[in-house]
Amino acid sequence: MNAPDPDFVSRVRESFGRQKAMALIGASLKNVAAGVVEIALPYRDDLTQQKGFIHGGILGMIADSACGYAAFSLMPAGGSLVTVEYKMNILKPGRGSLVAQGKVVRPGRTLTVARGEVYADDGSHVATMLQTLMALPAQPDSPE
Amino acid sequence: MNAPDPDFVSRVRESFGRQKAMALIGASLKNVAAGVVEIALPYRDDLTQQKGFIHGGILGMIADSACGYAAFSLMPAGGSLVTVEYKMNILKPGRGSLVAQGKVVRPGRTLTVARGEVYADDGSHVATMLQTLMALPAQPDSPE
Amino acid sequence: MNAPDPDFVSRVRESFGRQKAMALIGASLKNVAAGVVEIALPYRDDLTQQKGFIHGGILGMIADSACGYAAFSLMPAGGSLVTVEYKMNILKPGRGSLVAQGKVVRPGRTLTVARGEVYADDGSHVATMLQTLMALPAQPDSPE
Amino acid sequence: MNAPDPDFVSRVRESFGRQKAMALIGASLKNVAAGVVEIALPYRDDLTQQKGFIHGGILGMIADSACGYAAFSLMPAGGSLVTVEYKMNILKPGRGSLVAQGKVVRPGRTLTVARGEVYADDGSHVATMLQTLMALPAQPDSPE
Repeated sequence: MNAPDPDFVSRVRESFGRQKAMALIGASLKNVAAGVVEIALPYRDDLTQQKGFIHGGILGMIADSACGYAAFSLMPAGGSLVTVEYKMNILKPGRGSLVAQGKVVRPGRTLTVARGEVYADDGSHVATMLQTLMALPAQPDSPE
Repeated sequence: MNAPDPDFVSRVRESFGRQKAMALIGASLKNVAAGVVEIALPYRDDLTQQKGFIHGGILGMIADSACGYAAFSLMPAGGSLVTVEYKMNILKPGRGSLVAQGKVVRPGRTLTVARGEVYADDGSHVATMLQTLMALPAQPDSPE
Repeated sequence: MNAPDPDFVSRVRESFGRQKAMALIGASLKNVAAGVVEIALPYRDDLTQQKGFIHGGILGMIADSACGYAAFSLMPAGGSLVTVEYKMNILKPGRGSLVAQGKVVRPGRTLTVARGEVYADDGSHVATMLQTLMALPAQPDSPE
Repeated sequence: MNAPDPDFVSRVRESFGRQKAMALIGASLKNVAAGVVEIALPYRDDLTQQKGFIHGGILGMIADSACGYAAFSLMPAGGSLVTVEYKMNILKPGRGSLVAQGKVVRPGRTLTVARGEVYADDGSHVATMLQTLMALPAQPDSPE
């Protein structure tokens, strides 16, 4: 896939750095390529649900951000994206450290569809997401 | 809807109290009725994404838990639930304090379908979720 | 909800009449109101899957069209809509004649979110859908 | 993937042959492998919606059946499956003849997750589906 903005990597990293919710859960940006972004989430006890697994909503958070930044990497500079919707299947309980990988399935001028996969340390497949995003070319990626 | 366990309210509250991820984001349990559960999320700056709105994954977290506990309220004592999948549409950016309401659409012995709505302080509709859960009647709702 | 086009009922009926796939399965348009559309599907043996229930994809077809026309009823004249995505939970096997009801959850200039419910003759709830549609204000609702 | 039933191909073909809704739309079974099933849909004018594209619900029908039979191929003989839910993104309008490919993402004793892709004649990607199915090991795959 082609990123029209040659500085897409630093643009993605800078934007991710402003996602305070990612800092709250300890998620960090790993690989950033055109249309493909990876987010790492080290295990922390305070990310769990009542049975001791990583909360399903936390799986959704990292997959959501990974898909969103995969789409953002393919945007022209100066605009922003909004998540329209996502659907996630949890394939097995989330244990230990996790990685979420977001990939653009179909880039579009207005709508982009991305897929997210969450994997555990042992390579097992924890969750799969399908997400729709809408481009806002005239709205900057920063607070109003 | 009928809850077969007369102590479902305390069972839901006790289980929610063990969701450390809810404590992390500052979410608290409000109303608990048979098949209907509400979770409140006061605004905090560290829950936001890059544009200053509440992170879409955080919206998913509270809707996910609200739906899950709506389903859990209708279970017999002694078992537990696992989230199979959820799909959420974000209807408008999440600003300020939020409430997520989960309601069971169809209770089932094995599968339960629930709907979640996230509302802002001003009553506006922020997100809507559709979720599938699977009952694990023989697995206790606690760490292995 | 307010329909900006005073002739929305006839516009919806005329467009539905051009959905040959609806004629193929014997579906017909019932009620049309601003943001709410109902489609009836009489039982036919050739709509079934291998166990004799109405095919899940057929449930999706009538819910998809009901949601789409609910959204279309709220559009200005002259434009058209495209389905971005939908998600459907099948709550029980589809038997006998069915009705799909589509309702707009959130109308929007670009994106509209709608909900669809499929009911059986006996009033039982067969399926629930959540759908996203995109407006194409400059593309007419007719073949290219 | 391993199919526990050595006769899975004929079992899938026999069951598909009883899906009258597939005959109605002219869909036929192409390749059947363990966990992967393809369904072909030649273009027909009576499968279209108001703009002349293949109806989105028809895309859902063939993707639904392809995913379902991909899951069915991995089941032991004697049981059956029910579709719990599916979500589909339409990536571009469906024109001409189509092929739906269903693949199991995660097989399970109770729940199976499958992914479906719909492609056009020219190889373009028309739709992508994520589906959840539930095994009914004690219910035969035939009318009650």
